[in-house]
Amino acid sequence: KSHSSLNGYRKSCWYEEEIEENLRWCFALNSILHTGASQYQDIALLDTKPFGKALVIDGKLQSAEVDEFIYHESLVHPALLHHSSPKTVFIMGGGEGSTAREILRHKTVEKVVMCDIDEEVVDFCKAYLVVNREAFCDPRLDVIINDARTELEIGKECYDVIIGDLADPIEGGPCYKLYTKSFYEYNVKPRLNQGGIFVTQAGPAGIFSHTEVFSCIFNTLRQVFKYVVPYSAHIPSYADTWGWVMASDTPFTLSDDELDIRIKQRIKGENRYLDGKTFSSASILSKAVRKSLYDETHVYTEGTARFIYGHGSVHKHNQA
Amino acid sequence: KSHSSLNGYRKSCWYEEEIEENLRWCFALNSILHTGASQYQDIALLDTKPFGKALVIDGKLQSAEVDEFIYHESLVHPALLHHSSPKTVFIMGGGEGSTAREILRHKTVEKVVMCDIDEEVVDFCKAYLVVNREAFCDPRLDVIINDARTELEIGKECYDVIIGDLADPIEGGPCYKLYTKSFYEYNVKPRLNQGGIFVTQAGPAGIFSHTEVFSCIFNTLRQVFKYVVPYSAHIPSYADTWGWVMASDTPFTLSDDELDIRIKQRIKGENRYLDGKTFSSASILSKAVRKSLYDETHVYTEGTARFIYGHGSVHKHNQA
Amino acid sequence: KSHSSLNGYRKSCWYEEEIEENLRWCFALNSILHTGASQYQDIALLDTKPFGKALVIDGKLQSAEVDEFIYHESLVHPALLHHSSPKTVFIMGGGEGSTAREILRHKTVEKVVMCDIDEEVVDFCKAYLVVNREAFCDPRLDVIINDARTELEIGKECYDVIIGDLADPIEGGPCYKLYTKSFYEYNVKPRLNQGGIFVTQAGPAGIFSHTEVFSCIFNTLRQVFKYVVPYSAHIPSYADTWGWVMASDTPFTLSDDELDIRIKQRIKGENRYLDGKTFSSASILSKAVRKSLYDETHVYTEGTARFIYGHGSVHKHNQA
Amino acid sequence: KSHSSLNGYRKSCWYEEEIEENLRWCFALNSILHTGASQYQDIALLDTKPFGKALVIDGKLQSAEVDEFIYHESLVHPALLHHSSPKTVFIMGGGEGSTAREILRHKTVEKVVMCDIDEEVVDFCKAYLVVNREAFCDPRLDVIINDARTELEIGKECYDVIIGDLADPIEGGPCYKLYTKSFYEYNVKPRLNQGGIFVTQAGPAGIFSHTEVFSCIFNTLRQVFKYVVPYSAHIPSYADTWGWVMASDTPFTLSDDELDIRIKQRIKGENRYLDGKTFSSASILSKAVRKSLYDETHVYTEGTARFIYGHGSVHKHNQA
Repeated sequence: KSHSSLNGYRKSCWYEEEIEENLRWCFALNSILHTGASQYQDIALLDTKPFGKALVIDGKLQSAEVDEFIYHESLVHPALLHHSSPKTVFIMGGGEGSTAREILRHKTVEKVVMCDIDEEVVDFCKAYLVVNREAFCDPRLDVIINDARTELEIGKECYDVIIGDLADPIEGGPCYKLYTKSFYEYNVKPRLNQGGIFVTQAGPAGIFSHTEVFSCIFNTLRQVFKYVVPYSAHIPSYADTWGWVMASDTPFTLSDDELDIRIKQRIKGENRYLDGKTFSSASILSKAVRKSLYDETHVYTEGTARFIYGHGSVHKHNQA
Repeated sequence: KSHSSLNGYRKSCWYEEEIEENLRWCFALNSILHTGASQYQDIALLDTKPFGKALVIDGKLQSAEVDEFIYHESLVHPALLHHSSPKTVFIMGGGEGSTAREILRHKTVEKVVMCDIDEEVVDFCKAYLVVNREAFCDPRLDVIINDARTELEIGKECYDVIIGDLADPIEGGPCYKLYTKSFYEYNVKPRLNQGGIFVTQAGPAGIFSHTEVFSCIFNTLRQVFKYVVPYSAHIPSYADTWGWVMASDTPFTLSDDELDIRIKQRIKGENRYLDGKTFSSASILSKAVRKSLYDETHVYTEGTARFIYGHGSVHKHNQA
Repeated sequence: KSHSSLNGYRKSCWYEEEIEENLRWCFALNSILHTGASQYQDIALLDTKPFGKALVIDGKLQSAEVDEFIYHESLVHPALLHHSSPKTVFIMGGGEGSTAREILRHKTVEKVVMCDIDEEVVDFCKAYLVVNREAFCDPRLDVIINDARTELEIGKECYDVIIGDLADPIEGGPCYKLYTKSFYEYNVKPRLNQGGIFVTQAGPAGIFSHTEVFSCIFNTLRQVFKYVVPYSAHIPSYADTWGWVMASDTPFTLSDDELDIRIKQRIKGENRYLDGKTFSSASILSKAVRKSLYDETHVYTEGTARFIYGHGSVHKHNQA
Repeated sequence: KSHSSLNGYRKSCWYEEEIEENLRWCFALNSILHTGASQYQDIALLDTKPFGKALVIDGKLQSAEVDEFIYHESLVHPALLHHSSPKTVFIMGGGEGSTAREILRHKTVEKVVMCDIDEEVVDFCKAYLVVNREAFCDPRLDVIINDARTELEIGKECYDVIIGDLADPIEGGPCYKLYTKSFYEYNVKPRLNQGGIFVTQAGPAGIFSHTEVFSCIFNTLRQVFKYVVPYSAHIPSYADTWGWVMASDTPFTLSDDELDIRIKQRIKGENRYLDGKTFSSASILSKAVRKSLYDETHVYTEGTARFIYGHGSVHKHNQA
């Protein structure tokens, strides 16, 4: 009782993501490897045909096997390389483990604190993301299950680099408060050592999508730090260009060649994405994005959350 | 780095079937339970949200947990009940095991031969379709891996009922030859005992789709047998009404009540779909279908295969 | 800058309907012919490849060119044919015009009142549904824009047949009150002439879906009328079997042949779907549906609305 | 008879593109504005919700209203700006008209020849793409319907800039021959004036997709011209980064600031995408892409066409 095409048949099983209300991105599936749920969110590990294994949280792709190196190398290495000798690093979020993995490749690093609110996500990734298994076992890594803001408030230790690997700052979501001026001023900056660098993922940075959160994160950090560097890269599995912002009170002065030298000296193994020229290109934003970042006037504060227009309906932040 | 809807998120993983080139039917997925492949076809067992576990062969749904009883009770029981006392049954195809399961519920049955060409499909279903496990272990069942046509040609034994549980007769496909006038005349009818009944699945039987193969199977059987009864039922997971044709040289004379009495006497357990009234309704076809069945002039012969119009592009038969 | 398949390319534009939260039904599109909006709902007329022109209200298919005759012949003709000589007919809803069209084919009919709440839907269908243009111009048709319940409350005229062509009775929706026992008792029945017949569409009637509203509509009407006949038919474009319930205090006694004679005598043109045998088959429900209709205990009352389980998330009624 | 969500309903009509066999990109539709067909290809103008009006040829998005400026400014301006004073320009393909539109913004330009093989596409775009209407009427524009290769072979005139706005070089497709070493050597280069510049679109240039054709186009041009500059930009509606290659026997020596000065002096109106810094960033390729371009050894020749791996099934070229 079966009808089948003589010419072979089309792919039958699909993962489908609503990037916006009016825009969908669909991957053919090999299998649904694991599913789970925490008190905060649903978790799934899918095996997709176009992008390999994909971690999906609450129906949104977090990272895909074939190109997560773009996101994680971009998040981690510019900040650590620009620091003269990073020994201690604090990760807000980062439960997937890939951010820790990239940090731990730096030979100077002696201690990494990863502070994620969702223990089930951490355990799920520890169990199933083979690529991060070594990192999760590294004795230099200290995993803390807590709200990163609370952890920074109550702790006293200072770090050479603090990294924000959290969901986007969307009003009403759990992460909004971790992107505000007062949080940066009173919780992040005081916890940086002299010469310390803060870097955060900063949401979509495409020619249209950068106005959602990228420009505001940039402008908010500009109120708190003397030197602020926004940069971006296209990530195929996200179907968009992504943004990061690096900030410090010490100027960023390395040339392409100096970055390349530090990469060779300090990082174990070879980067797949980032080198000096790549960072150069990534940190020269295109005309429209550059202009709207520098024209941005909005500052994230606890009192003046800003609604996200143009990116589907209402969104929430997940702390992943 | 995740965007999630505040209002919960939509289903992410989907099974998608092209019922025709211009028509799709999509089920949300819980998981992809098992996948396999034989020399003939690809096999998958999916766990779908709307229809439970679903057996998919070459991208086409074969049967779904929640409603396969409609197909299999309709295929098996009318023929066996109309027979005075069916002891031996031959199944052409039927590798899934559900047809055997329904036959084995008949207390009169002493021997069932299931002849399917694809050993991997049979092994896959034996291993994973829990609902048919008991049937596969029944000592009255004899599973033969062979082409059903060859098996009927070389064998000598006769049967009380012969059941066709094969893919549709589409030219160029593996099953076409098992629906021709000469096959019925020289291979099926001679292998029926006195008073024997033949029944076959007969493809889609909807108000438009019945012209694909249902009307021709009916008309072909009418050339070979004295009494021919077409009937149909809507199967939700197929998104269509399905057809079967029952044929014999002995007239079919049971009333609704007589059918109900035989169901009680002969069948172990309770039918979920079929009873006397249900069969009455199923065998009264609606005006348009009735008319085009009786007006049909095409006969399936080895020389005059007929192409299928209106059902997507080209199709092949699978012997499942 | 284009990549195209050498083998022709797949259909690009699709209409997609969520039949349930976990189940989608997708038609390839030729074009989007017209779109509009009223204070109550959004309206679109699409040209689909598998089902021709399709009227879609609030994202739900209302009727498709190729098979709307099944719905409308089933809704109208059984009631009018069982009446000894129907002269006056009242339609609750029916703004599409197809119900009126089928009624007006009856030679005995002298007056049809169509009472729909949504003037924009009526105007949209009048303008664009060519197949109903003649009906909309028939001098026997009187279109009233009003809530059908109010109209029946305030009016005094009685009718030979009253027809419910409204959205399903879902709590909180606009049509719920037009399916309650008290509405039938105090607003419908008193407005029927001696020997009058009431008939209503009654929602999905598939082997699983009939428990949504079909069984309750049947049971509610059973509280008010002496004779109640439920019947159903598979409608391909709905991807389901649909149900209707016909009710009267006069018994329904026509045989198949008597129905066929009345069809010939009274109806202009030829029915495409309904004849005596078709109605016979349609009114013999399958075992499971029959049993759960007769076991149903719920009665729709204004006080005890019943939530719909298993049919997607929350729904509302539209009066179309 | 309608079921509708109380919470509003999901988008119903979608444009769906298979970027690769395993990857789909879907836009909600407002309407299907116009459709047409030529002897070579099918054409449609859609009104999409996420990207505005979209020109689709043979089921593949050619350009979308909201971001076609990225493609066309990137294709046209770098070459014209690097030329000391471009007066005459030849476009291979370009029937959409947007490439001509951008060229005609240059005050130095006296004559543009657009040579496209498909008259219906040109007429369709002339009729429906309002944004290019002025360009199509510019007296400096000369539209020729011919195969660009034949036109370059038979013509004698030389040009300051020649622009390739053709489908990708895929073996067996109509455009393959317009990307070969011998074509560049014997048909393009001889038709450039002293100091002339050739530029071509060069297919997807993403971190994985650049190996399809971008690296080979680069390497092939490197065999023919002394100075070759590859560059790329992310185009949201393509769901990928796109590539272009610019080539000349005169070196490209302008700084960012010099480019910005020429933009101001020569181009009417303001660029939305391209300025000096944007071109700088676009022409610094990321590590992996840079490396595989410089390591590429394949050269397109008429004898040694190279199949495209990893980009879906078989593809053909369209000359659009």
